[in-house]
Amino acid sequence: MDISSVGGIFLGLLLLGGAILIGPTGFGAFIDIPSFFITCGGMFSALMIAYPMSAIKAIIPVGMKVIFGKAPDMGPLYKDVVDMAAIARRDGILALEERVGNLQNDFLKRGMQMMVDGNPPEVISAILNKDIENMESRHMQGSSLYKNMGGYAPAFGMVGTLIGLIQMLQDLSDPSALGIGMAVALITTLYGAFFANLFFIPMSNKLNERSAEEVLMKKMVLEGILSIHTGDSPRIVGDKMLVYLTPAERKAVAEGQGR
Amino acid sequence: MDISSVGGIFLGLLLLGGAILIGPTGFGAFIDIPSFFITCGGMFSALMIAYPMSAIKAIIPVGMKVIFGKAPDMGPLYKDVVDMAAIARRDGILALEERVGNLQNDFLKRGMQMMVDGNPPEVISAILNKDIENMESRHMQGSSLYKNMGGYAPAFGMVGTLIGLIQMLQDLSDPSALGIGMAVALITTLYGAFFANLFFIPMSNKLNERSAEEVLMKKMVLEGILSIHTGDSPRIVGDKMLVYLTPAERKAVAEGQGR
Amino acid sequence: MDISSVGGIFLGLLLLGGAILIGPTGFGAFIDIPSFFITCGGMFSALMIAYPMSAIKAIIPVGMKVIFGKAPDMGPLYKDVVDMAAIARRDGILALEERVGNLQNDFLKRGMQMMVDGNPPEVISAILNKDIENMESRHMQGSSLYKNMGGYAPAFGMVGTLIGLIQMLQDLSDPSALGIGMAVALITTLYGAFFANLFFIPMSNKLNERSAEEVLMKKMVLEGILSIHTGDSPRIVGDKMLVYLTPAERKAVAEGQGR
Amino acid sequence: MDISSVGGIFLGLLLLGGAILIGPTGFGAFIDIPSFFITCGGMFSALMIAYPMSAIKAIIPVGMKVIFGKAPDMGPLYKDVVDMAAIARRDGILALEERVGNLQNDFLKRGMQMMVDGNPPEVISAILNKDIENMESRHMQGSSLYKNMGGYAPAFGMVGTLIGLIQMLQDLSDPSALGIGMAVALITTLYGAFFANLFFIPMSNKLNERSAEEVLMKKMVLEGILSIHTGDSPRIVGDKMLVYLTPAERKAVAEGQGR
Amino acid sequence: MDISSVGGIFLGLLLLGGAILIGPTGFGAFIDIPSFFITCGGMFSALMIAYPMSAIKAIIPVGMKVIFGKAPDMGPLYKDVVDMAAIARRDGILALEERVGNLQNDFLKRGMQMMVDGNPPEVISAILNKDIENMESRHMQGSSLYKNMGGYAPAFGMVGTLIGLIQMLQDLSDPSALGIGMAVALITTLYGAFFANLFFIPMSNKLNERSAEEVLMKKMVLEGILSIHTGDSPRIVGDKMLVYLTPAERKAVAEGQGR
Repeated sequence: MDISSVGGIFLGLLLLGGAILIGPTGFGAFIDIPSFFITCGGMFSALMIAYPMSAIKAIIPVGMKVIFGKAPDMGPLYKDVVDMAAIARRDGILALEERVGNLQNDFLKRGMQMMVDGNPPEVISAILNKDIENMESRHMQGSSLYKNMGGYAPAFGMVGTLIGLIQMLQDLSDPSALGIGMAVALITTLYGAFFANLFFIPMSNKLNERSAEEVLMKKMVLEGILSIHTGDSPRIVGDKMLVYLTPAERKAVAEGQGR
Repeated sequence: MDISSVGGIFLGLLLLGGAILIGPTGFGAFIDIPSFFITCGGMFSALMIAYPMSAIKAIIPVGMKVIFGKAPDMGPLYKDVVDMAAIARRDGILALEERVGNLQNDFLKRGMQMMVDGNPPEVISAILNKDIENMESRHMQGSSLYKNMGGYAPAFGMVGTLIGLIQMLQDLSDPSALGIGMAVALITTLYGAFFANLFFIPMSNKLNERSAEEVLMKKMVLEGILSIHTGDSPRIVGDKMLVYLTPAERKAVAEGQGR
Repeated sequence: MDISSVGGIFLGLLLLGGAILIGPTGFGAFIDIPSFFITCGGMFSALMIAYPMSAIKAIIPVGMKVIFGKAPDMGPLYKDVVDMAAIARRDGILALEERVGNLQNDFLKRGMQMMVDGNPPEVISAILNKDIENMESRHMQGSSLYKNMGGYAPAFGMVGTLIGLIQMLQDLSDPSALGIGMAVALITTLYGAFFANLFFIPMSNKLNERSAEEVLMKKMVLEGILSIHTGDSPRIVGDKMLVYLTPAERKAVAEGQGR
Repeated sequence: MDISSVGGIFLGLLLLGGAILIGPTGFGAFIDIPSFFITCGGMFSALMIAYPMSAIKAIIPVGMKVIFGKAPDMGPLYKDVVDMAAIARRDGILALEERVGNLQNDFLKRGMQMMVDGNPPEVISAILNKDIENMESRHMQGSSLYKNMGGYAPAFGMVGTLIGLIQMLQDLSDPSALGIGMAVALITTLYGAFFANLFFIPMSNKLNERSAEEVLMKKMVLEGILSIHTGDSPRIVGDKMLVYLTPAERKAVAEGQGR
Repeated sequence: MDISSVGGIFLGLLLLGGAILIGPTGFGAFIDIPSFFITCGGMFSALMIAYPMSAIKAIIPVGMKVIFGKAPDMGPLYKDVVDMAAIARRDGILALEERVGNLQNDFLKRGMQMMVDGNPPEVISAILNKDIENMESRHMQGSSLYKNMGGYAPAFGMVGTLIGLIQMLQDLSDPSALGIGMAVALITTLYGAFFANLFFIPMSNKLNERSAEEVLMKKMVLEGILSIHTGDSPRIVGDKMLVYLTPAERKAVAEGQGR
């Protein structure tokens, strides 16, 4: 669970909901089903035209990642690789076989297995780098999808407001209805601005942050695997991986290892 | 037929049309022929000034691709190349001659024919890479055309609204006509925003997605052809091509081949 | 004459002019000399501050290129180079001397003359590539000038509307004058949006397209010249140049040559 | 203390506060707690969704840097490195050991320590360059955070204004309340524009400037360390570092050294 | 004196001033001291927060360059370098010593002095290239400063208009005061749009153009110096420098030299 995302969604709904509740009209004036269909339905239609079906199906699972995703835990990975470097140094790479089977991290496991299977480092590097690249471009599609949602939602909000205004302007005979008509017309613009700025655009950004963290983690692991393959000492393997950590993570790792 | 595109167009028209139909004015208030001419005619005039005639003629065929285009089917291509790799390994490249004649995919056929004709790999690679590059830049022109349509349509929508406002403001003596005049003036802005956001901008994006898929397919095929030329085993030829596939496609290919 | 540009300008004026004519006010309401001076004069003043005098003087000639320019005709150039390749193959490079004097295309003539004069290929390549680069950056200045015109015109349109609004708001005592004042204020915004979207922005784009065509033509010619210098057969010289052509041009060239 | 930042904040508050005070309404009309919660609370919620918790926690400390940060003082650093170059030239690198312990600048100290410890130059260069890169990307996250604050604040300002307008339009029966309602609705837009343009966007820019200065300082120091390692004369070490200084700093350094 | 800049400023003030003068209100309605303080003072405060003090102090001198700067005169520089190439060819590089002392252009003088002092070409090239790079980044800061002024001015214009609107809306009881209040509120927006579009944004562009010219001049000079160092003939030195000139400058140079 991403506490920051969940907290942000909760706080945003609370604050904006509160601002509406203490106002003179209550919630009722802000709920309008046709306005919702124009804004979100229009946005969804545009997305279907803009993206292949496979990307459309990924909207929900990708969105879930913003709420349930968490940053990869670099410390244990660092420790695992350094431990295996010590074993490889002492007993040779083949001695890692058993240990590899128990690894939690798929990427590390796959890379170590390739090494134990006797693949040369350039092959391991090429395949795992391509894997990282592929993951990045998949992530980018997900994040660009949410960014586009953040563009289409206000656009269809404006389309809805224009429709409402044109309808309202056809009959100006009843001034008291004018305000209500105008208010309803503005609701689609509000929906578009609200969904885009509180959900879609920030979610697109969080997806980018998550992707960057995962890329960094995989690059650190790959660096470690290739370093073990070269026959580096555990200390050098660790130093090569440390540069991928933030100062805070470095300190945590150092404490965890008594270094 | 691109189900996603067709579904999106259908859904968008349904939702926005429905929102208008349940409104107080019906469709009539939203149909105005001069407004259509200002918005779409102005947009089309600007496109004619902005692009050479050849690009203007391509507007309709390029647009059709959004509706009728489909993603290239990577599985059979993968299988074809791996099969030919096995033949080439066993009986030599010349043994592929007959098989090449029956290939469905033009790009694969052309590349294999060049190989069978005895061209060196650097020539095949140079010519096919230039072909991919040319295709990309042609696709990009098509997609930029639709992107520009998505920019000019709202711009001329605004020009139309300004014309309507200026006409309306010349005579404010009849307040009841004011609303109608204003409504008509806003219709061009609505047309521009509607066409741009429901059609042109998403279509430009889908054209980019389609182009990327086709480039990936051709790059995979080229990788395979060059791998056969090098004399790689069918297994290695396949592995080199696999990295161009998404995880889902890889699984499909693996199942289709019993790997 | 660029039929597409001329047609676009004609069509745009026709449609927007027609929309005004069938309106209730006629043309008179849309013509206001001070508004024209604010919008176009302000734009021109900003351009003078933004660019050196040499670029300002080029506004008209560069604009003329949009109307009178035409795409370079690649076919005859292709044929000329291939013919000369045949002569050079048969009788040596010096045999081209007479032919070179009669060449129409300046760039081809200059390159061939350098070859006949005995300059080494790296010198020819360096000088002609620098020539292409210089041409591109000159073209880019022209196109950026029109793009900036497309930005300053609406900006000064808005400045004019603000001036008009402030003047109008000083005296609200006569409601009937209010509409006219507001209409006049809006005319500068209309002028800015109209000139920018129907002329300046599309013209900037056409200038870019023209520049890209000319660059491609020169690159094809340079490729051919260097290929002749290397002593390639006419067939290979032709093949190396073909990759710079679109599929349609390739077909036209092939038909013209009975290939 | 960054005099420029503090002065700018002071001046901005003074001028805008003064403009409000001399107006007819006084401050009271511009203070509205719910508007503040919608604008800044909405912005903060969006940031929590957009960034990981670690970045959210850094908002205050990063902002403090704009006020309390100062440009690194290049002169003493230049002098320290040149002095050590003279010692190294005369007595060897090991003679620097004692001096290194007393260095103020952490980056310089760390680099010199690595040299004294006998690390080869490519290792020192790789580790210190990675350190500079890491610092830059940390700084960039901080500055992008403030840039995003400058985008979300006006966005939620607009959301707040839409909420206010919709509430106001529900009841137009009391015209005297209309103006107040509209004024309150506009306050969120004012808050958003004010915070973004006076604080968040300029602060993001200052953070970038600060980061660039620090990167330059570290690059100069690294250049000097590597130059000492190569065994360059103090004069050449100095010359290699001088190119990182502005003309003003060069003059100051030259005067300070009697060069 | 940059005639184009001065003419543009003069023309812009004349046209917009004239448009105001022939209007019904005269200049008085457009002058409002508090509005000026909000727009320009707010902009200046934001700049102080955004930039270090050294950049703020450079606003006036950098702006002066737009008015008093002029394009470097390439012809005499070209001639000087070619003349020195002839001397160096005939009598050796040391024979240039006296001539170097009389050179007008600082950059040329410094480069030639380094050559006469016996520095190897890679050192001269490295130092002078770094000098060009430094100059470019200093210029870029100046031009970005004016570009940011063109962004902050309209932003604070909008802030001022919001403040004015909120004040006006507090008391709608006197309709005649309404127009004046609204007019005053709009003046800050006018000021922001006017200063940004007539001064700051075009000036930023002119600064970029000036910088590009100066970079080109220095690159031409450096090319010439290195060519003399290599021992090239005056003709080749000239040819290497010619590619940095525009066609018009080349013709002027050719005529001036009787080539």
